[in-house]
Amino acid sequence: MYVGEDVMDWTGVLARRMGRMKASEIRELLKLLDQPDILSFAGGIPDATLFPTAAYERAMGEALQNPAALQYSVSEGYGPLRAWVADHMISLGVPCGPENIIITSGSQQALDYLGKLLLTPRDTALVGWPTYLGALGAFNACEPRYAPLDPWRNVAPNEMQAEAEAAGGKVKMAYLSPDFANPTGETLDASGRARLLDQARALDIAVIEDGAYQALRYNGEAIPSLQAMDVAEVGGIEASRVIYCGSFSKVLAPGLRVGWVCAASPVIERLVLLKQAADLHSPTLNQIATDRVARELFDTHVAKLRQVYSARRDAMLDALDRHMPEGVTWTRPEGGMFVWVTLPERMDAAEVLAQSLSSERVAFVPGGAFHADGSGRNTLRLSFSCASEAQIAEGMERLGRLLRVQ
Amino acid sequence: MYVGEDVMDWTGVLARRMGRMKASEIRELLKLLDQPDILSFAGGIPDATLFPTAAYERAMGEALQNPAALQYSVSEGYGPLRAWVADHMISLGVPCGPENIIITSGSQQALDYLGKLLLTPRDTALVGWPTYLGALGAFNACEPRYAPLDPWRNVAPNEMQAEAEAAGGKVKMAYLSPDFANPTGETLDASGRARLLDQARALDIAVIEDGAYQALRYNGEAIPSLQAMDVAEVGGIEASRVIYCGSFSKVLAPGLRVGWVCAASPVIERLVLLKQAADLHSPTLNQIATDRVARELFDTHVAKLRQVYSARRDAMLDALDRHMPEGVTWTRPEGGMFVWVTLPERMDAAEVLAQSLSSERVAFVPGGAFHADGSGRNTLRLSFSCASEAQIAEGMERLGRLLRVQ
Repeated sequence: MYVGEDVMDWTGVLARRMGRMKASEIRELLKLLDQPDILSFAGGIPDATLFPTAAYERAMGEALQNPAALQYSVSEGYGPLRAWVADHMISLGVPCGPENIIITSGSQQALDYLGKLLLTPRDTALVGWPTYLGALGAFNACEPRYAPLDPWRNVAPNEMQAEAEAAGGKVKMAYLSPDFANPTGETLDASGRARLLDQARALDIAVIEDGAYQALRYNGEAIPSLQAMDVAEVGGIEASRVIYCGSFSKVLAPGLRVGWVCAASPVIERLVLLKQAADLHSPTLNQIATDRVARELFDTHVAKLRQVYSARRDAMLDALDRHMPEGVTWTRPEGGMFVWVTLPERMDAAEVLAQSLSSERVAFVPGGAFHADGSGRNTLRLSFSCASEAQIAEGMERLGRLLRVQ
Repeated sequence: MYVGEDVMDWTGVLARRMGRMKASEIRELLKLLDQPDILSFAGGIPDATLFPTAAYERAMGEALQNPAALQYSVSEGYGPLRAWVADHMISLGVPCGPENIIITSGSQQALDYLGKLLLTPRDTALVGWPTYLGALGAFNACEPRYAPLDPWRNVAPNEMQAEAEAAGGKVKMAYLSPDFANPTGETLDASGRARLLDQARALDIAVIEDGAYQALRYNGEAIPSLQAMDVAEVGGIEASRVIYCGSFSKVLAPGLRVGWVCAASPVIERLVLLKQAADLHSPTLNQIATDRVARELFDTHVAKLRQVYSARRDAMLDALDRHMPEGVTWTRPEGGMFVWVTLPERMDAAEVLAQSLSSERVAFVPGGAFHADGSGRNTLRLSFSCASEAQIAEGMERLGRLLRVQ
């Protein structure tokens, strides 16, 4: 590092929002994964050995026969991919067309843009306690207030709006991932979805449905998405308040950063303006290659992933049953990548992690960071997506041993 | 399009900032370029036939031998590419290391993040009249006030800050592209750069230097970048207030969306937090491939581009000399992709464009959109990067014919 005589003091020029931008514990933890003897259940990432790498290589080679694959392209995304996604959404019960789709650089970018679309500083966003950490990170840049999202809670809409107005804004959105959510692995049942949509209608707010894991169901009946339910109720996508975020990250590969938003066309048009201003467009080649690979093998590949991941999920639930001491509870996810563990109240998962890394060499994510209100210190997230069944058995045995002596 | 019985009214949930997000005239114009008989000098895009496509195909094929090329990666960017960029910045007179570099999805994304980093609503950003339209688009999401950036203007710093405070914020940044700027093609000379840095020091603000075209100089002596001048003056990158945005878009290929920011490490650390929250990271494969291609051919490729583009620049200046009527003036750029034309005061370039598209089939960008204050209606931008010398001669002849009868 080059060290000058002096350093610049940036505090006077930073935007107010920077007070809320903090490092993600998960991203920091990813840096630890380079240590080869750590058994990691931390990162919520797919198994790279399962990527359809050969198909991508072929698709890219073909796409590069046309130099337009390396040229600027339109902000709304590559036409054939938008059309594929629209057909995919139709298959999920949402009649729509390409004008209802924008391609984003992963669904994380969709959350960034949706915060910008909806949130003025001091507006209220309803989020789960806990919720996806990356959603809080994205929305934080818009300086909202958070209030708890709970379909089973009975609070009058006018009371919620009055609280939001007292805080200097309005309730604008509810954000949730209804299927095998990150971090809990839990699924909101059909009656919960119906209640949530009723509440959103009463509040007249947008609902952001994060469908990142929806395709990865291992057992149980698929439940219609919030968007499919709302569209069926209100008569069409143009009348729906649900904004669906989808992603190829968990079902094909995350490194190319390709996701989408499906919503009423006035929302898509505004997201296109935001994207134009924020990064012009997602990489052209990545979209062309994703279109080719999705058309070639999406369904067969997802079927293969379900088989591998469901065996790992089973291995984790088995091992937890065998090794966890009394007082520890966990979710039983029907899909996705995560099991959510609740420790006895007296324990602090961040302290357990520190011990675990030094004595048992097992990594997980402490649950506190997923709570907008700072609660949940006795919770933790385990991911089963990247470990073999043997590693899962070994890891849960070590973790159980450690928890037994807390 | 699926049409439901009713449509959702979104006005109640939109963020205040959306009132400032408008469609870019340039991006809308790009859609016209599909019409094959239009001679277009509109889009500021590189010539796709010059892309090092074979090198990218090779680099991607090699990178994909490791499935990690399709996996999530760190927000700050691919280590070897950060190191290459740091060496590149050193060659431009800015001693720095990888800790001073973040990889972004093009320099447009850098502008989005820098707005977020610095601008609270009602803060003041100093920008040129005219300036890069995409910078205004990116900053608009943060709802700033704009004031004119002019190194030759004598306004006392405390007066400028007093005006900014009266508007509800502070002066936070100056943004400019000092070399062959988009849209004017003009270069700020060394004494102008020194004055601008003096003003920025007196105001204690950040300077955002957009270096997108810096490598594309066709004649004249290279002038040190603002960052190189400031670093030399203040003793090192950590003491410098200049934040440099670089891009591979104009010198390799734009479609992969790879750019960078070089700045003091506390700025880079905060940009990493913003990127983590906004899109996690730029696509892994795109960064690996760009690193390989840059190492293989950056210098020889830039030399080739200079040769082709400088001949087109010469052809355009020649043709303008021959065909433009009295009262029309234009810049004589030493590099980049643009010539900036000023029509007689009575003319409106947007009206001329409408006529030009219908009668002469020649496209350009009216200059009004580049002015934050709505002035510049009698200006227009011509790009010479994508037309052959014969097309340039023909196009300028047609444009001259049209302007003669205005």
